[in-house]
Amino acid sequence: MGDSSRFAAAAEDDTRAAIMRATYDALTSHGYANLTIQRIADEFEKSKSLLYHHYDGKDDLLVDFLRFMLEHWEAKAECREGQDPRVRLEALLDRVAAVELDEETAAFTAAMEELRGQAPHDAAYREQFTEHDRALRERFAAIIAEGIDDGAFEAVDPAVTAEFLLTTVNGIRIQRVTRDDDGGVAAARAELDAYLATRLYRGEA
Amino acid sequence: MGDSSRFAAAAEDDTRAAIMRATYDALTSHGYANLTIQRIADEFEKSKSLLYHHYDGKDDLLVDFLRFMLEHWEAKAECREGQDPRVRLEALLDRVAAVELDEETAAFTAAMEELRGQAPHDAAYREQFTEHDRALRERFAAIIAEGIDDGAFEAVDPAVTAEFLLTTVNGIRIQRVTRDDDGGVAAARAELDAYLATRLYRGEA
Repeated sequence: MGDSSRFAAAAEDDTRAAIMRATYDALTSHGYANLTIQRIADEFEKSKSLLYHHYDGKDDLLVDFLRFMLEHWEAKAECREGQDPRVRLEALLDRVAAVELDEETAAFTAAMEELRGQAPHDAAYREQFTEHDRALRERFAAIIAEGIDDGAFEAVDPAVTAEFLLTTVNGIRIQRVTRDDDGGVAAARAELDAYLATRLYRGEA
Repeated sequence: MGDSSRFAAAAEDDTRAAIMRATYDALTSHGYANLTIQRIADEFEKSKSLLYHHYDGKDDLLVDFLRFMLEHWEAKAECREGQDPRVRLEALLDRVAAVELDEETAAFTAAMEELRGQAPHDAAYREQFTEHDRALRERFAAIIAEGIDDGAFEAVDPAVTAEFLLTTVNGIRIQRVTRDDDGGVAAARAELDAYLATRLYRGEA
């Protein structure tokens, strides 16, 4: 690829990143149900017509947003090689299912669960959430496999344990934004920690 | 209450039950996103105007549907007094988070998760799902407390364990209808059973 087309590709990337940033801000401010292309445009420095040039509508844009989030997640290498697998596992759980969320993260989590609520009737959303779940499950499974190799973890089936951890994370995510109480997150996390101590960590049971 | 007003109340109940049945059928056929009052009316033997007489619109009707489901659930006494708490716990898990679902139950589960996806931005839905979660959590906690009294279960905190079980159930429910694969349900249930054997059932670990 020549220099000019390389530049064009980079400019394209910049535009997409700017649209994605505006989408994040609009989702966090308005949620999915009240989101419009106009509200994304309000957060966007460039022209609204650029949004329509790139996307067929709100849902097309949001599906690309989910794709972008996943690329971002997968590109971010875990810079923790050599760290204790148990420390890494707990850091990951704290990242994806923290007991306390700041206001912005809570608003964004609520919007993500609204998007997930589109997946039962929309194949494009369903594909994205299938991939989001796969990425997190693989991250769990890799840490568990390493812990088993190290002798720090019991010889469980990493794929099964990872799917179970993912299921508890998805349960926490949906409960915390769809209930009037705290979603039972503190209790669920406490029991998840007890489960890990009993079933996974060696020399703890 | 005199006989005539008692009859009026029963007729009112019959109409509500008929509307609820029509709503269940329409939700199972069309899901939430494609649901209209007309589609509920299509499943309803009486007149569409009766629906508008009772409800302000689709969401008002669906919130009452969630209320009706919960009343139905709470009224249905568990006719299993004296049964082994472990058998009762596993029967309850099979009822709310079965590994395999028939087509109708799968379609209804998908619709329920779409309704739950309204809860982040709609307080009336959020109130209903808070109550649905409370009811299931209390059912879990009651069985766990009985198992502890019997000496069949370890002396866990029933409230904490019940919230954790609820979280895994909600994770299974959302995953199974928002992914292209099987939602990891079989793996999650297998590990949930292993968790119960290790943490809850006495003489299994």
